[in-house]
Amino acid sequence: MSWVETELREQPAALERFLASEGAKADELARELARADVRYLLIASRGSSGNAARYAQYVLGAVNRLPVAFATPSLYTLYDAPPRLDGALAIGISQSGASPDVVAVLAEARRQGRPTIAITNDPASPLAEAAEWTLALDAGEERAVAATKTYLNSIAAVALLSAVLDGSEERLDELRETPARVAEQIERSLGEAPRLDPYRDVEGGSVVARGMTYGTAFEIALKIRELSGAAFEPFS
Amino acid sequence: MSWVETELREQPAALERFLASEGAKADELARELARADVRYLLIASRGSSGNAARYAQYVLGAVNRLPVAFATPSLYTLYDAPPRLDGALAIGISQSGASPDVVAVLAEARRQGRPTIAITNDPASPLAEAAEWTLALDAGEERAVAATKTYLNSIAAVALLSAVLDGSEERLDELRETPARVAEQIERSLGEAPRLDPYRDVEGGSVVARGMTYGTAFEIALKIRELSGAAFEPFS
Repeated sequence: MSWVETELREQPAALERFLASEGAKADELARELARADVRYLLIASRGSSGNAARYAQYVLGAVNRLPVAFATPSLYTLYDAPPRLDGALAIGISQSGASPDVVAVLAEARRQGRPTIAITNDPASPLAEAAEWTLALDAGEERAVAATKTYLNSIAAVALLSAVLDGSEERLDELRETPARVAEQIERSLGEAPRLDPYRDVEGGSVVARGMTYGTAFEIALKIRELSGAAFEPFS
Repeated sequence: MSWVETELREQPAALERFLASEGAKADELARELARADVRYLLIASRGSSGNAARYAQYVLGAVNRLPVAFATPSLYTLYDAPPRLDGALAIGISQSGASPDVVAVLAEARRQGRPTIAITNDPASPLAEAAEWTLALDAGEERAVAATKTYLNSIAAVALLSAVLDGSEERLDELRETPARVAEQIERSLGEAPRLDPYRDVEGGSVVARGMTYGTAFEIALKIRELSGAAFEPFS
């Protein structure tokens, strides 16, 4: 079994662990997001974490009516001219928590007295140290080139913040059911994988989605590129 | 002479016309941008205008310390769940002023009582009607598939807002010198174009840039794709 398949099969347990361990903390974090002086979220991220940020932009925008902006790290690192961040709550998403660009944005936001949240798989990382609050992804170790557990838990972290901020018990219950749903879907997808064999030599293609699932289109295209080298692109 | 070349040669005059006709209005607009309740800019745009928005993100961030967020139009049109926009000043950039997505964002921002600015080549367009303020690009008609005059004037509009908001006479003087500089550069570039002949059959490539010029890397890649079909991509 490849590392990717092993880690896909670990997804439901990793998701359940994250929801169990960090669910309680989400209450505190939602109070930060609901502060009257928080006008928008500023998310710093790279790669797969950036696709989770794209999901945040839609779900927090549509459900919680919170605008989400993406940080431009080079303003913090290359030009040394960070924007003033009054009105912002800054969130850094990084599996390793070690990306200097993402850390720089959170450190600056905190220096300006803004609330800061790290979403990372390593609660001892520089990102977690830079932020006031941390949601630990608790996804375990990842060895595959294509990270799957941390991506799933990152979007779960976003969904958790959205549901708690919304004060919706129904959405929280749905979220608690996701590990079982994910387990079912993984079995179904692995069972159907052989039907994709005729497309084994495809050199490129598109992944089409819109709105809530647009970030996932980026992530699927990225995963295909990482694992096969085929030139897949996301489209809205 | 192709339409593209004709219109490239019209760029300096179009730029000069824009700066002369809209320069005075920039004072009023800068007062809106400097309002104490404006925490960030929300820019709605598509295609080439989106690349001008990317430039805005860097120049307004680095020089004016204003964070710039990009709107996600489907929150306004697909989900009918627009974010609350307190703290935002909304800018719509559209050559035609007819993009329903861009218009929807500006109309919602105005409904929420936020300041709104249209940057468009058609001051009688729906976008200009939706916005409280308009910067008219005054680039004249464009017939080439690849729009060049409106792109240049869009980034000039952004640079104008930044310089006026910064209160810098030096930067305004530099901006007034740009039509002459652009004319020189166009002559130089057209003179050197034959040296690119060996690359006539290239099927793809990358345009690499960072920070301030990152938006222009997107725009150059887009122009090459529009005019030649070659698969060029921008990279940071």
